[in-house]
Amino acid sequence: LKTNLDCIPCFLRQAVMTAKDLNLNEDQAQALIRRTLELSLQMDWSVPPPLMGRDVHRLIREMTGDKDPYLAKKITATERALSLLPEMESAVAGSSDPFLTAVKLSIAGNVIDLGVATGASTDIKKAMQDALTATVNQQAVDSLRRAIQDAGDILFLTDNTGEIVFDLPLLEHIGSDKVTVAVRGSPTINDATMEDARRSGLTDRFRVITNGTDIPGTWLDECSDEFVREFEAADLVLSKGQGNFETLNDNERRLFFLFLVKCATVSRMTGEPVGSFMVLENPS
Amino acid sequence: LKTNLDCIPCFLRQAVMTAKDLNLNEDQAQALIRRTLELSLQMDWSVPPPLMGRDVHRLIREMTGDKDPYLAKKITATERALSLLPEMESAVAGSSDPFLTAVKLSIAGNVIDLGVATGASTDIKKAMQDALTATVNQQAVDSLRRAIQDAGDILFLTDNTGEIVFDLPLLEHIGSDKVTVAVRGSPTINDATMEDARRSGLTDRFRVITNGTDIPGTWLDECSDEFVREFEAADLVLSKGQGNFETLNDNERRLFFLFLVKCATVSRMTGEPVGSFMVLENPS
Repeated sequence: LKTNLDCIPCFLRQAVMTAKDLNLNEDQAQALIRRTLELSLQMDWSVPPPLMGRDVHRLIREMTGDKDPYLAKKITATERALSLLPEMESAVAGSSDPFLTAVKLSIAGNVIDLGVATGASTDIKKAMQDALTATVNQQAVDSLRRAIQDAGDILFLTDNTGEIVFDLPLLEHIGSDKVTVAVRGSPTINDATMEDARRSGLTDRFRVITNGTDIPGTWLDECSDEFVREFEAADLVLSKGQGNFETLNDNERRLFFLFLVKCATVSRMTGEPVGSFMVLENPS
Repeated sequence: LKTNLDCIPCFLRQAVMTAKDLNLNEDQAQALIRRTLELSLQMDWSVPPPLMGRDVHRLIREMTGDKDPYLAKKITATERALSLLPEMESAVAGSSDPFLTAVKLSIAGNVIDLGVATGASTDIKKAMQDALTATVNQQAVDSLRRAIQDAGDILFLTDNTGEIVFDLPLLEHIGSDKVTVAVRGSPTINDATMEDARRSGLTDRFRVITNGTDIPGTWLDECSDEFVREFEAADLVLSKGQGNFETLNDNERRLFFLFLVKCATVSRMTGEPVGSFMVLENPS
């Protein structure tokens, strides 16, 4: 997905929101906005928006001297999500279609996104409850169900911290013998890293690898060779979140995207309103 | 009101929206966004946002070679508003408090704003109907009522084309012997100019002057000397719309602002939610 005109005000809006979220002082906030304006002018518009996200958040880490400015927020999100895990597990166990419920919970977790201000509530408990009544394209879910059954090994690309706890019921359904979980190579916004996966209990249950980058997406041109080999070799790839969708939607290997539609551009592309629960098969 | 961080993404958003509204081609749209980024970097943040609006819309007029790119939209808005005028007049005549109803209609007309995308409906008929049930600070309305009665001459600063038709019942209530109506000096977004006032029937009934600028607000530093003299000499100034509020809110002469709250910044300043009908006395 190429950067388009609508992405530019969104970059600036995200920078302003980040300045507030991280309590930057007035000078730092102004400097961040000015640098974001400069980056917007210099950027290559033919690449997907998460590459700009990477640059902005690198800048924030440089400015604040903090290698992981979202750490406290990530720890809180992890704790909250873990406190809901028993409830999620019993919702799945008690469901007439446990797989479908696990898929919906995984998508619902995608509300925990500090990179996009959608005005949507990021109340994690509400997200969990909404998931249970959300509608998802049934045909796509059935196709996903079959694809998981047929695959010998699956690569699961995670998105945000906290969200990865919501992925647990689905990952358990797939099974630790079959799935490898991928996280970001280093901190970027609140995206999950190896440390966050450890804190969420994923590393105890699953094989976890990193993609080797600090891009809030999966941009293969910059991922580690090791990751790219795993990506290409896997029977099936499951991709969580809009950032991974934006960076992989032109990829031609078979994969499924699970995400919430978060902006007008992706809404236009998918034909679904902002807030929709998406299961999308690629190539479609 | 100084430009603040939140204004920057809004400038970009408005530029993107304008590119779409005016059907600019891809090259023109990209150039507009790039120039808006540059202007945002160069701008003096100590001045109010409408000065940036002026620069962006000057650029659009240069790029398109069109001195009044919103002309067709302005004519449509005028015609629609004029078609509702008889209904407005009978609502005022049939009201238990005709002055209050005229004030509410005038504020309601402020939805006709092509400069701000609030997501709010700009359905003119709906605006008129909403006005009749809207709530306004009663104390401020009573203070405005007395101020109008006591004033010998009143300067009324208009905002947008179409909106000025919604001002007519209030202007008639004040009376043509008492009120002078001010419009922008030349086209900027859909703000009302002398030509728009003529097309709306205002020049037949009232003395109309211009402020001599193409700023979508009233920035006295750049207004004509003649306008500034009228502004200073008037017993009372009534100011319509957020652009006039943003450029005059620090002014120390007695005036009343009538507007809809259109953004988070002004919402914070006024303590009222976006969409509120405001009658605000200055100095407060």
